[in-house]
Amino acid sequence: MTDITRADGRAVDQLRPITIERNWSSHAEGSALISFGGTRVLCTASFTNGVPRWLTGKGKGWVTAEYAMLPRATNDRNDRESIKGRVGGRTHEISRLIGRALRAVVDTKALGENTIVLDCDVLQADGGTRTAAITGAYVALADAIAWGKERKFIAQRSEVLHDSVAAVSVGIIDGTPMLDLAYVEDVRAETDMNVVVTGRGLFVEVQGTAEGAPFDKRELDRLLELGVAGCADLRDAQAAALAG
Amino acid sequence: MTDITRADGRAVDQLRPITIERNWSSHAEGSALISFGGTRVLCTASFTNGVPRWLTGKGKGWVTAEYAMLPRATNDRNDRESIKGRVGGRTHEISRLIGRALRAVVDTKALGENTIVLDCDVLQADGGTRTAAITGAYVALADAIAWGKERKFIAQRSEVLHDSVAAVSVGIIDGTPMLDLAYVEDVRAETDMNVVVTGRGLFVEVQGTAEGAPFDKRELDRLLELGVAGCADLRDAQAAALAG
Amino acid sequence: MTDITRADGRAVDQLRPITIERNWSSHAEGSALISFGGTRVLCTASFTNGVPRWLTGKGKGWVTAEYAMLPRATNDRNDRESIKGRVGGRTHEISRLIGRALRAVVDTKALGENTIVLDCDVLQADGGTRTAAITGAYVALADAIAWGKERKFIAQRSEVLHDSVAAVSVGIIDGTPMLDLAYVEDVRAETDMNVVVTGRGLFVEVQGTAEGAPFDKRELDRLLELGVAGCADLRDAQAAALAG
Amino acid sequence: MTDITRADGRAVDQLRPITIERNWSSHAEGSALISFGGTRVLCTASFTNGVPRWLTGKGKGWVTAEYAMLPRATNDRNDRESIKGRVGGRTHEISRLIGRALRAVVDTKALGENTIVLDCDVLQADGGTRTAAITGAYVALADAIAWGKERKFIAQRSEVLHDSVAAVSVGIIDGTPMLDLAYVEDVRAETDMNVVVTGRGLFVEVQGTAEGAPFDKRELDRLLELGVAGCADLRDAQAAALAG
Amino acid sequence: MTDITRADGRAVDQLRPITIERNWSSHAEGSALISFGGTRVLCTASFTNGVPRWLTGKGKGWVTAEYAMLPRATNDRNDRESIKGRVGGRTHEISRLIGRALRAVVDTKALGENTIVLDCDVLQADGGTRTAAITGAYVALADAIAWGKERKFIAQRSEVLHDSVAAVSVGIIDGTPMLDLAYVEDVRAETDMNVVVTGRGLFVEVQGTAEGAPFDKRELDRLLELGVAGCADLRDAQAAALAG
Amino acid sequence: MTDITRADGRAVDQLRPITIERNWSSHAEGSALISFGGTRVLCTASFTNGVPRWLTGKGKGWVTAEYAMLPRATNDRNDRESIKGRVGGRTHEISRLIGRALRAVVDTKALGENTIVLDCDVLQADGGTRTAAITGAYVALADAIAWGKERKFIAQRSEVLHDSVAAVSVGIIDGTPMLDLAYVEDVRAETDMNVVVTGRGLFVEVQGTAEGAPFDKRELDRLLELGVAGCADLRDAQAAALAG
Repeated sequence: MTDITRADGRAVDQLRPITIERNWSSHAEGSALISFGGTRVLCTASFTNGVPRWLTGKGKGWVTAEYAMLPRATNDRNDRESIKGRVGGRTHEISRLIGRALRAVVDTKALGENTIVLDCDVLQADGGTRTAAITGAYVALADAIAWGKERKFIAQRSEVLHDSVAAVSVGIIDGTPMLDLAYVEDVRAETDMNVVVTGRGLFVEVQGTAEGAPFDKRELDRLLELGVAGCADLRDAQAAALAG
Repeated sequence: MTDITRADGRAVDQLRPITIERNWSSHAEGSALISFGGTRVLCTASFTNGVPRWLTGKGKGWVTAEYAMLPRATNDRNDRESIKGRVGGRTHEISRLIGRALRAVVDTKALGENTIVLDCDVLQADGGTRTAAITGAYVALADAIAWGKERKFIAQRSEVLHDSVAAVSVGIIDGTPMLDLAYVEDVRAETDMNVVVTGRGLFVEVQGTAEGAPFDKRELDRLLELGVAGCADLRDAQAAALAG
Repeated sequence: MTDITRADGRAVDQLRPITIERNWSSHAEGSALISFGGTRVLCTASFTNGVPRWLTGKGKGWVTAEYAMLPRATNDRNDRESIKGRVGGRTHEISRLIGRALRAVVDTKALGENTIVLDCDVLQADGGTRTAAITGAYVALADAIAWGKERKFIAQRSEVLHDSVAAVSVGIIDGTPMLDLAYVEDVRAETDMNVVVTGRGLFVEVQGTAEGAPFDKRELDRLLELGVAGCADLRDAQAAALAG
Repeated sequence: MTDITRADGRAVDQLRPITIERNWSSHAEGSALISFGGTRVLCTASFTNGVPRWLTGKGKGWVTAEYAMLPRATNDRNDRESIKGRVGGRTHEISRLIGRALRAVVDTKALGENTIVLDCDVLQADGGTRTAAITGAYVALADAIAWGKERKFIAQRSEVLHDSVAAVSVGIIDGTPMLDLAYVEDVRAETDMNVVVTGRGLFVEVQGTAEGAPFDKRELDRLLELGVAGCADLRDAQAAALAG
Repeated sequence: MTDITRADGRAVDQLRPITIERNWSSHAEGSALISFGGTRVLCTASFTNGVPRWLTGKGKGWVTAEYAMLPRATNDRNDRESIKGRVGGRTHEISRLIGRALRAVVDTKALGENTIVLDCDVLQADGGTRTAAITGAYVALADAIAWGKERKFIAQRSEVLHDSVAAVSVGIIDGTPMLDLAYVEDVRAETDMNVVVTGRGLFVEVQGTAEGAPFDKRELDRLLELGVAGCADLRDAQAAALAG
Repeated sequence: MTDITRADGRAVDQLRPITIERNWSSHAEGSALISFGGTRVLCTASFTNGVPRWLTGKGKGWVTAEYAMLPRATNDRNDRESIKGRVGGRTHEISRLIGRALRAVVDTKALGENTIVLDCDVLQADGGTRTAAITGAYVALADAIAWGKERKFIAQRSEVLHDSVAAVSVGIIDGTPMLDLAYVEDVRAETDMNVVVTGRGLFVEVQGTAEGAPFDKRELDRLLELGVAGCADLRDAQAAALAG
């Protein structure tokens, strides 16, 4: 497998260069500009004391996410969803995925009656935007929780986060399973999978789709193995950013 | 595992009663009213000679799907999406899933420049609506293709369908992996997964989500095993309906 | 007039076969799957204790209706109104008609501060969908009121329904007035009329439109006579279903 | 019946003061500002050479209408439908009614491949806005057709209008049938009916609704009689305006 | 400059004929049908005791405006914004301008917790519709405030209006600055400017745009001079109408 | 005037630190990340060979702009316009302003039948976002035109840009006219003005609004003087970026 040459010279089990610019925003309670190679996503966390009406009085908080792409984040310009007057299916689906992924590591009781909204805006897209969004949003979320503790909206000793969470794409190209697909790889993939994994190595979400030929159990196992290893590297990058 | 008692007395690896009422509609080119226990979905296939503008002249056809729920399909009434003026994220996500699942077994070249739209309307919901929709839509699709051949829109010898496809939900409840969750089970599941499997036993889609605790590789494997076996039973039910 | 041959062999003053499948839904407080020949409408009644804000504290209840058609209920597929993002004029108009027709036989004081929403979803259309919807919705409404009495939301002795209500279409084809038009007749009708009549034979609504030549008083009288007789037959079918 | 006193002193079979200000607009191809007492509707006809795509090449024209109300046409201000982002059911229903009423007297073959759009905007509302709109729109339509003949878009000898058309409301108040209800009467009416009648006295549309108690055949007959007589007076007012 | 001939024979510093028909509406608390030549705008003021939720309890009132055009106000028919389902940018922009212009002369403390909505509907357009709207809306506003005082919603001695406000367009055509452009002039203007000026001659708003060549300070000064003089004439017309 | 102390220590006629990061995007044909102090706007230019249908065949090109703000660009989070389903009035107004400002320096004949869309997305807002957007968009536009010449979509010798354009805000705070207001200044300003000025010092747009007390001619003159000087500094920054 070491003989496979990827367009950018990476090994099949190698991530693209990962950078996490923490506290990019001077307004948000937590923020991170994350890049997975050419993919750049601005993640901001907005902290509100209080919860939506349907959750009031239950002693629990709420974490949700919204994903969007700037019109010229991609190679060809896409019309704005605000102009079209409706949010597309793909946007909705990814927003829901990010929210679920983050809630999987949050103890909403410990969060108390507070709401954190994660906005993940893709400034530039080159494959893997949803996985970069989850990975960066975790950093923004952690900072927003720290902010809430400083302001006493959250009890100092509350363990709101019981684990960290990161995500990465994997896929099969020309029969070879690979980690962290760039756009040129993504469009050629026969199978495309996103895995969301906690810092302890457990699965939060596995979404695999055969774009071309259906896949068998052996291929699925290899993809999961690559994804778990990639997420471990991302976990380390998150920890480094949060320690910085 | 044989000691686990499910609400409806089923074994953990047992489907609910499956019925497929083929040709329910007198207008559609293919149709099936499918039930997975209390879940009832009306699937119709609409055949159009010709393709959307963006596909014209490429010698390929198009298969797409739309999923929706009647307002009182559920235990509490939901507002109509037509009245709200927008289609919700969940609806979009499931419509896209159904379309992808069906296209995975369609040879669009063999289909020729024809379009088939699958409408999957949930008349009554009791868990697993998206998997019932995929399973029933396959039957309607097969009939619509046969209709297209009779009318000579598709060459008689074209092998449009290179496999069949079915789907089922699996999940972990109180630590036990189970097949084909009814609504009362679904809301209690720690992990919820939908698997889409071809007649030959290959994966088209695997979507697993930890609703509660994250899951490990061993649990994932058991869920996939249950799902593959359930889809084999559904494949047989589809074949029986199409032979009927 | 006995010499006129209709496409399906009916006499000019004869209804199509009427079936009413009561309690079709296991979730709704009242439901009926009604068919007028090939027209099939699923009517569900959703009972809510309480009224919309604008009616609160007036000691009165509210009954309303929503009509819709599945995309492939018709011979050609229609786009979903949820996808188009707006409800069409025809849909609105029919929803309003059904609501008015039912409210005409309801004593909202006797109903108390409760709301009943009737959903009428056309599963298959072959002419007369709005009249079938009214006729079936009455059955679902009666059952929802009975449900409300059992649950003590409505006083046991309240006479909420002071009459029954049914509806039928009539029209003039090739100069001949006829009852209960099927789709092939409807498109050829010079005049098209819907009459909504109570069990006691009084008019709730008369909506007649000249699609071709305008009509005179004599023709109008004959159409009304046919409609009143047809509604009497439908009243008997409703009573039989509710007695069943 | 002569003893009944109406709020404005009219006899039960008497119209309110009717004025028709023809050619109110300097831009439209036909226009009329019509008043039925305090109800004032600006009707403009816009003539376009050509037809919508779905009608192209059939040698026929198209007449359609749109009805709307200014936000403060009524006693309390209503939000604009443009701001709400959707056109309400009542607006749609009335627009469709006006279009049908006008098309009933138009020979679309004689019109040729031309389109006329009637805009009926209620500047002030005091009951009967839809009937005033139909009556005024007929005048604007006649002028637009004359304009089309002058410009040679329509053959000089074409008889596009084979009759005139007018409309009026009738209703039963405290058991008494009355003509042309003002707003204060309309809200009290037990039965409310709109009749659309041609210049020759034939019915184009009859829409009667029991708002309170259902009505019997004798009452219906009296309402129709009043409506036909009222429409004859309106026909004369239209003729006078067009002769002016 | 006196040698310049305008299409309608006016001098470059001359307004078109201005008419203000006060109390046009019998429902609104204040109203004016204003015309600037062929431009006719119906302005109504709707008074509500109380303020929007976001302003409650601050002891201040609110004045806002909505501008719209009838579909055939212009030479070619425009689609209704209600049908399109969205309000266009130009409409929004003008509505906001009118609201700001009026608020500039209102003491919202003196108004108390009352809301006044100004609706400015263009019945016929011939250039300068936004400036006619502001000028007419001021008259309707003054009457609505008087109405509020009569009803004791506003203290009798409150000085709600600390000045009057009017607006006019100016522009440069073929190098010549001119006042109050009609439509045929507006489309040819190299620079187009709207000025909103109080009765005391102070600026509330200056909006100048180079449609063709950019303009210099000298031209800007001449345009402002013309605009201020035009607004002084309009102030006198407002005063005359309010005195009438 | 030199004694006035601004929150950030600037002189009244001093711009905030201006940075222009050219070619920020690897996809767009031109791009600039511009900052005016804490205000950061990403401007991208998308070049398309061809023009919208309504301009086809006229030998002219088209330049347009869209402005938007990320939800957490501001101190409090704003809901996304895509989620709300409609673009707000302020967004529309600013998009239109940016488009007009850029078209003022473009020779659309020289551009040929090409379209350039400028997207200005505010990543962080601290006052003056629309003026930063215009200033940055000019840089992206210039690069997109250069790109079009390299690709031969535009003739090499065409002088598409006959001048440069920049914009800045000015305002009166506590009676003192000041240049380039930061957010804390903007909210306190009695008068707020945006001026758009070409490289040669001519006005393209002047938009001044009295938020508090109306302003007189002397104040207006001082604001214009500050704005013209500020735009000259911005023109130099643009030139430096484009030379870089």
